[in-house]
Amino acid sequence: MKYSFRNDYGEIGNPEIIKILLESAYEQTPGYGLDPYTKALEIKFRELTKEDLNLYLVSAGTQTNMILIDKALENYEAVIAVDTGHVNVHETGAIEGSGHKILITPGIDGKLTPEGVLKILEEHVDFHMVIPKLVYISNSTELGTVYRLEEIQALYRLCQEKGLYFYIDGARLASALASSVANYTLADIAKYSDAFYFGGTKNGILYGEALLIKNKQLKENFHYHLKNKGGMLAKSYVVAKMFLRLLEDDLYLKHARHANYCAEQLIKGLDLLAVPHLPPNHTNQIFLTLSNETIARLSEDYKFDIWSPGKKESMIRLVTSWATDIKMCEEFILDLKKILNK
Amino acid sequence: MKYSFRNDYGEIGNPEIIKILLESAYEQTPGYGLDPYTKALEIKFRELTKEDLNLYLVSAGTQTNMILIDKALENYEAVIAVDTGHVNVHETGAIEGSGHKILITPGIDGKLTPEGVLKILEEHVDFHMVIPKLVYISNSTELGTVYRLEEIQALYRLCQEKGLYFYIDGARLASALASSVANYTLADIAKYSDAFYFGGTKNGILYGEALLIKNKQLKENFHYHLKNKGGMLAKSYVVAKMFLRLLEDDLYLKHARHANYCAEQLIKGLDLLAVPHLPPNHTNQIFLTLSNETIARLSEDYKFDIWSPGKKESMIRLVTSWATDIKMCEEFILDLKKILNK
Amino acid sequence: MKYSFRNDYGEIGNPEIIKILLESAYEQTPGYGLDPYTKALEIKFRELTKEDLNLYLVSAGTQTNMILIDKALENYEAVIAVDTGHVNVHETGAIEGSGHKILITPGIDGKLTPEGVLKILEEHVDFHMVIPKLVYISNSTELGTVYRLEEIQALYRLCQEKGLYFYIDGARLASALASSVANYTLADIAKYSDAFYFGGTKNGILYGEALLIKNKQLKENFHYHLKNKGGMLAKSYVVAKMFLRLLEDDLYLKHARHANYCAEQLIKGLDLLAVPHLPPNHTNQIFLTLSNETIARLSEDYKFDIWSPGKKESMIRLVTSWATDIKMCEEFILDLKKILNK
Amino acid sequence: MKYSFRNDYGEIGNPEIIKILLESAYEQTPGYGLDPYTKALEIKFRELTKEDLNLYLVSAGTQTNMILIDKALENYEAVIAVDTGHVNVHETGAIEGSGHKILITPGIDGKLTPEGVLKILEEHVDFHMVIPKLVYISNSTELGTVYRLEEIQALYRLCQEKGLYFYIDGARLASALASSVANYTLADIAKYSDAFYFGGTKNGILYGEALLIKNKQLKENFHYHLKNKGGMLAKSYVVAKMFLRLLEDDLYLKHARHANYCAEQLIKGLDLLAVPHLPPNHTNQIFLTLSNETIARLSEDYKFDIWSPGKKESMIRLVTSWATDIKMCEEFILDLKKILNK
Repeated sequence: MKYSFRNDYGEIGNPEIIKILLESAYEQTPGYGLDPYTKALEIKFRELTKEDLNLYLVSAGTQTNMILIDKALENYEAVIAVDTGHVNVHETGAIEGSGHKILITPGIDGKLTPEGVLKILEEHVDFHMVIPKLVYISNSTELGTVYRLEEIQALYRLCQEKGLYFYIDGARLASALASSVANYTLADIAKYSDAFYFGGTKNGILYGEALLIKNKQLKENFHYHLKNKGGMLAKSYVVAKMFLRLLEDDLYLKHARHANYCAEQLIKGLDLLAVPHLPPNHTNQIFLTLSNETIARLSEDYKFDIWSPGKKESMIRLVTSWATDIKMCEEFILDLKKILNK
Repeated sequence: MKYSFRNDYGEIGNPEIIKILLESAYEQTPGYGLDPYTKALEIKFRELTKEDLNLYLVSAGTQTNMILIDKALENYEAVIAVDTGHVNVHETGAIEGSGHKILITPGIDGKLTPEGVLKILEEHVDFHMVIPKLVYISNSTELGTVYRLEEIQALYRLCQEKGLYFYIDGARLASALASSVANYTLADIAKYSDAFYFGGTKNGILYGEALLIKNKQLKENFHYHLKNKGGMLAKSYVVAKMFLRLLEDDLYLKHARHANYCAEQLIKGLDLLAVPHLPPNHTNQIFLTLSNETIARLSEDYKFDIWSPGKKESMIRLVTSWATDIKMCEEFILDLKKILNK
Repeated sequence: MKYSFRNDYGEIGNPEIIKILLESAYEQTPGYGLDPYTKALEIKFRELTKEDLNLYLVSAGTQTNMILIDKALENYEAVIAVDTGHVNVHETGAIEGSGHKILITPGIDGKLTPEGVLKILEEHVDFHMVIPKLVYISNSTELGTVYRLEEIQALYRLCQEKGLYFYIDGARLASALASSVANYTLADIAKYSDAFYFGGTKNGILYGEALLIKNKQLKENFHYHLKNKGGMLAKSYVVAKMFLRLLEDDLYLKHARHANYCAEQLIKGLDLLAVPHLPPNHTNQIFLTLSNETIARLSEDYKFDIWSPGKKESMIRLVTSWATDIKMCEEFILDLKKILNK
Repeated sequence: MKYSFRNDYGEIGNPEIIKILLESAYEQTPGYGLDPYTKALEIKFRELTKEDLNLYLVSAGTQTNMILIDKALENYEAVIAVDTGHVNVHETGAIEGSGHKILITPGIDGKLTPEGVLKILEEHVDFHMVIPKLVYISNSTELGTVYRLEEIQALYRLCQEKGLYFYIDGARLASALASSVANYTLADIAKYSDAFYFGGTKNGILYGEALLIKNKQLKENFHYHLKNKGGMLAKSYVVAKMFLRLLEDDLYLKHARHANYCAEQLIKGLDLLAVPHLPPNHTNQIFLTLSNETIARLSEDYKFDIWSPGKKESMIRLVTSWATDIKMCEEFILDLKKILNK
């Protein structure tokens, strides 16, 4: 086995970040988020965004989505999401498991549209149906695409107008912000949402997601809610220290730019080999279609997920990360070229 | 401020353990518990206990209790626990929040008795009441006490006889195993329970709890359940690596013995000063009673929790850890002596 | 078998009420509570109480408690109730099953006291514990006792002051209102609570409970909540028609007075026979203690529940109803006298 | 207003049935389903079906679906249903509210196909996704269509083969059984399902649904589950008495045949007037499309639901019932003819 392109949480973490933990291994700090590092991180996020955000550090993405959504919704209220949305497909029913229906609508390149939201609102008219109450998007999306500022604004405005919460799943938010498509910054994400999370697990730290809540109603008693749902971390300060480093010198963007750059090089190679892939590719996920025979031979040297299996050919997913070795991207293309006899 | 005796999760982690992460920072590993380290840890636990245990790595203790109990019980089934039990008092309703009643009974020194269990079983007779179905204990307990082997065996046998699950919350299991009271090993814990968790957060790693399930019914589809409840960690392998080190050379026992030893020294000092404290103290938690004035003066230099506030005097809790500086224990006693004018 | 004193829901219903249904069997009426009868009943309750009550008709008592409490509370919020409370003991974990912890305190004669509530409030101090948020009482209580106006007022005022909801389970509210102890009317129940239910099942209708909500926050989207929890009745109008009759000419009080009167006659007889029973008895439930032998002989002719079984003697419960035959009460006493050889 | 074709739960109930309640108004009967009538009804259903069915009487349809499905599924398991299914659209999220995702697939005339089920099974491959575990159909369907025996058998066999539960929502089961399409009896419904419910509310009784469970795993502790979910009725015997009458002399089929016959007459009239309606129509629901102007004029005299509103024309639903006056069907057609100037 030469290399894995399976995901962006396959390497432990940036040594620079781990060193910080090592250097303060014996430092004494209060637990459960009441420590100075969690506080400093909250202040840092507030400074970066100029918004009155509350910060909660959580261990995993599905957990973050589940806990935020469960805070926002009564059981008779529902999420609106695209059919390919992570909450709908890849969370083993965690949202429904905590009591909330997800109403789905087709997306465009994995992105939700105001039209899609409006259609659902129009269909839900009386108390025999749920009340759509929270709009969920992920940015970058499950298909590796990135929202434009105007798309985010349009969704947020619609939510404001209709009394809906707007929540952004940012498992790969850095990857979106670092893409060439993103005509906005972290501050805009905060400005045009009620809550979002800034993913750490896929951005080079050991673990942890930073949930940031702007909407006052969602903030109320959130520490109680977090503990009740099993999401509170005794050593919140460990996660805070890692995030503080990510935000310093825009390390999170450097991580994401590297991942995106590696993906770009892979795509250039694929294009030269005329291998079809899902457009548009602006982040660190590439969905390409190869014959099953080619995939079998590639699998001898590389790890990746088979996204959509077919009888003759299948779609596979390549993911690059903050840690990806650019040389291995080149080698992958060379090896693929050999297999394809091109 | 000189020193904190507030808890055993106040220091980041043993540098030896952090170094292991640092050294393998770029290593590529599969996610979601399907990696060789999580597998190796499971094998290690099976070797240590000679039991067919399944391992699941989770980020926090309340979460672990909540997820295991929710797997074990239908909503019409209930937990039996002592009134001081962590699940009853200090989990912000997480067990009830996931649908399960806790039936409480007074303990002896924080420990559950077979008589207490039997009384509850006798009271629950028809379908207007819940069915008691899982017995919960923590070892060491919330009061720092430790079960004897014969006590654990008696509870387990009763559970076997009555068709109940027996689950041990081991947030401080190492501390129990390292105590002078424990006439048993990890293997006995596995032998005389259906499931238990081995706490890492309070034993010197960055975060993480190792949930170990022996009972076949509880194992079924547990990965699905874990993901559904938000407990699955993408980088399970990071936790696994840390636990592997804890189990090597009995490092977990060394950590716990150190904490227990520090507590012992504190108690010796308290006894010399004739300061009353809850007997029996065999682990790393000490509950002592001081005048509120003394507490106020101690608070200038030391951090600790006020466990049970009173008008004139209060009970405070001192906790030692794997990282506690034994010199600070001595200094604490000297300072207390000065305050007490003894 | 001569007669059953087992409960007050053992007879189908007052023929006068059933006749109303018979006479309008083919009448066409809208469903799901949007009908003129449900509306008229709501108006009737508003007139009787001079309070802006919303009415929801539900099929059963446990369901009513569960649905109201689930509307009022987040999962990190808890109910306060006496240990003998129906929600705590006799609902098979329905409240916890929908996510809410019940904090219990001893009552006096089955009645909750402000002191009991205050003690619980004082114990719950941080986000590791639930937030007590709703005070639950039943009136008449599980022990057949009745609150005085000043007791209800004191609890309501405390709730108002502390930001708690005050909810009255009125499965046997008519029985309380009809008792000699009750120095208040239905209007006071509405005035000094956030919500209550007026039980029909135990007051001579075929089925149905009238949930009445005064607090605005609890009213919000309640129809959605009711449907989501499975509590909405297609033929709400059937229940409404029966309740309209109950409220006409104070039929509900006549029903309850009859039941209470029958109980009073039984108690007079028991007192003459010097049979010990729980004081004070003002409603339609009597808890008396007899030797197991006497109970066995009584059981040949009468049905009743054994409330608290003992080795030599046990406590049994006699319940009278709107339909109880007063002659059978006399006969019961005569038969008991014979058995006791008095 | 002349007449309502809005639904089949708009009339109180068959006087013959109400009379039975009237005649036994004072009869004393045990509560909570432990009475001889509930038992007799269970025996009657077992005789009719030759299957070992357990019977539970519940007050409403959404509640019945919610409680059965919640018994069958863990939170990581899901329902498969057609997109138009009642559980998916018209239960205000009750299924998700109790923790279970619904996976939807397009139906043919509102009916689920084995191909639809298989496609969902193939898509759900690992622990990041739910496990499809229960197949839900309603018969007759939301569109008034009826399954053929061979369709039901095919679905049941597929479920047996794949380890899924097969559950039939029979809110309008009588209407299906009475239709010309149904080449089967109640016995076949029991034979080819794990559980089903036989609707009473829409078949001429005051309220109540009969849930019948054949699968042993679903039966386990069901009384506890029913009470925990708020579904247990104190006066189960009232519902049992009404159902016993429905089953006597095939009264349920007479009721349903009458409703279906009335619908047939309406359809004949519509066909003569060339009014388009959804084919095929074999039960008591008719979905027809008219201009909004025509609908407005019809609404002056008749009540019905607007099923799918459009800008110029809309689809309305006419429902007939056990109580429908056949003359009013004729009059409706005559009035429509006048409006249409035909």
